Amino acid sequence: MAGAFGFKGSCQKIRGPEIRNLLEAKEFFLFDCDGVIWHGENAITGAPKVVNSLIRHGKNVFFVTNNCTRPRENYVSKFYRLGFTDVMQEQIFSSSYCSALYLRDVAKVQGKVFVIGCEGVRKELREAGVPFLEEDDPPDATIYNCALSPDVKAVLVGHDDKLTFLKLAKASCYLRDPECLFLATDNDPWHPLRDGRILPGSGCLTAALEVASGRKATVIGKPSRFMFECISSQFRGVDPAQCLMVGDRLETDVLFGSNCGLDTMLTLTGVSQIEEAEEYRDSEHSPNQSLVPDYVVDTIADFLPAFEDQD
Amino acid sequence: MAGAFGFKGSCQKIRGPEIRNLLEAKEFFLFDCDGVIWHGENAITGAPKVVNSLIRHGKNVFFVTNNCTRPRENYVSKFYRLGFTDVMQEQIFSSSYCSALYLRDVAKVQGKVFVIGCEGVRKELREAGVPFLEEDDPPDATIYNCALSPDVKAVLVGHDDKLTFLKLAKASCYLRDPECLFLATDNDPWHPLRDGRILPGSGCLTAALEVASGRKATVIGKPSRFMFECISSQFRGVDPAQCLMVGDRLETDVLFGSNCGLDTMLTLTGVSQIEEAEEYRDSEHSPNQSLVPDYVVDTIADFLPAFEDQD
Repeated sequence: MAGAFGFKGSCQKIRGPEIRNLLEAKEFFLFDCDGVIWHGENAITGAPKVVNSLIRHGKNVFFVTNNCTRPRENYVSKFYRLGFTDVMQEQIFSSSYCSALYLRDVAKVQGKVFVIGCEGVRKELREAGVPFLEEDDPPDATIYNCALSPDVKAVLVGHDDKLTFLKLAKASCYLRDPECLFLATDNDPWHPLRDGRILPGSGCLTAALEVASGRKATVIGKPSRFMFECISSQFRGVDPAQCLMVGDRLETDVLFGSNCGLDTMLTLTGVSQIEEAEEYRDSEHSPNQSLVPDYVVDTIADFLPAFEDQD
Repeated sequence: MAGAFGFKGSCQKIRGPEIRNLLEAKEFFLFDCDGVIWHGENAITGAPKVVNSLIRHGKNVFFVTNNCTRPRENYVSKFYRLGFTDVMQEQIFSSSYCSALYLRDVAKVQGKVFVIGCEGVRKELREAGVPFLEEDDPPDATIYNCALSPDVKAVLVGHDDKLTFLKLAKASCYLRDPECLFLATDNDPWHPLRDGRILPGSGCLTAALEVASGRKATVIGKPSRFMFECISSQFRGVDPAQCLMVGDRLETDVLFGSNCGLDTMLTLTGVSQIEEAEEYRDSEHSPNQSLVPDYVVDTIADFLPAFEDQD
């Protein structure tokens, strides 16, 4: 698909009038969250105004996040707290919410889900009516003596800061049954924290279980197409040609956009650098072209002038 | 290298006189442990007599195990308890012992080692005089607030049944420093337990950290050559042409033997089946030939008749 303005896969820094033309041409804006509109508990300067202005101008705005730690209702509070006052719960598509939809509506899993994950995942499963196993191992339980439930028909892996070896071992045992579904909220390798620290992502735990089971997980989060399918099934007329996917990570956000046939924009307030995008662009390995954004901005605050003249 | 009797890579079941000829031709016998000479706490029938007879016939017998959970002195007790009464500590090469040797003698690591592993690993490090970080995080520590030591210059990953998310996260942070060595005791994906259960292996935790760090670990255990180098450096005249490696797992034991230029034997009392070996043999993918054993026996008890006539 050709980009709206001949920028397809060009990794082109755009500004001023080019941004305005792009915002006018697109009807659907998909934003990643961390590194794009906020860093942890701090909104990126100007981002709330950009998001609120898009919504007030009648654009359809969605948030597609691989972060599975919060249920969507917590996201609504966070959006509000950080100044994104016009965002509603139905605009938020998190990997835990979409995992719950997948288990209920696509896999139609008959039985219980064994969860490696945090409260965000469990809450979304509960709200979707997908039964899962409650943790009830005594403190001295080991994989040699613990109970394994015959009802488990799916293993769902996401970020879990209470991960234990026993959880990994139980999941590995459940996955011995080829009928047991193997699902991952996302495949993010790590997330940046302050002071150069990192947080291992769901992708680490998925990799561990893939080794133990000799199987590959079905991944719900970006870059898989499924979250876009969730949006399309809940909102009418979502035409890929009218969508812009804005993210800070080439291997998740930009690839997701490419996989769904959307125009893509890299914003430089997060993980990926423009040099990495240019390396992919100049690479002779053709699958790398799916990692090259159509557009690049320093920050989505670069959208602001487009509204200021109009407001 | 051609096998002693034209069996190289032939995956050939041998018995009776062929076994006797092979035992006479070889001077050095390397055995994997679990699935080869015992299953957990039960010796494989006949195995103690085979091992003791080889030793009494003046053969050099070594044990090369990826199991890093026990220090070698515990292995000596286990060997004795299960009837392998002639085995001495210096014949035992475990991945934790060899990891300690690597850190001290090869990497000559200057600083402390951060260990994901169990007491077997820590004990061997202590005995080799390799300093490592003692765990002292308060119960409420998280990756956001925990201490990270500037002295850590290596991360060593092995089986750890007390694994927590915090340990994974700390290791991931240490590995951000490209000067910090990344070592794994072994890469075993899983180990069979009773009742169809499995134990995730060190390979799972290594895979998790490889994803988090974007780096590849240096692996000490089989199929890497390093454990054979440890044997060669401690015993004179270990000629690969005079060695037989006996194991139950094609991807670790047989590949290890092939990597070191040893004749290899698969015993069918453990993980791998003869059909898998034949599949590798008949595959057109040439690296698979390193996974094909020269010889196959149902059990190492098949060695017994070779001694009985002589004793």
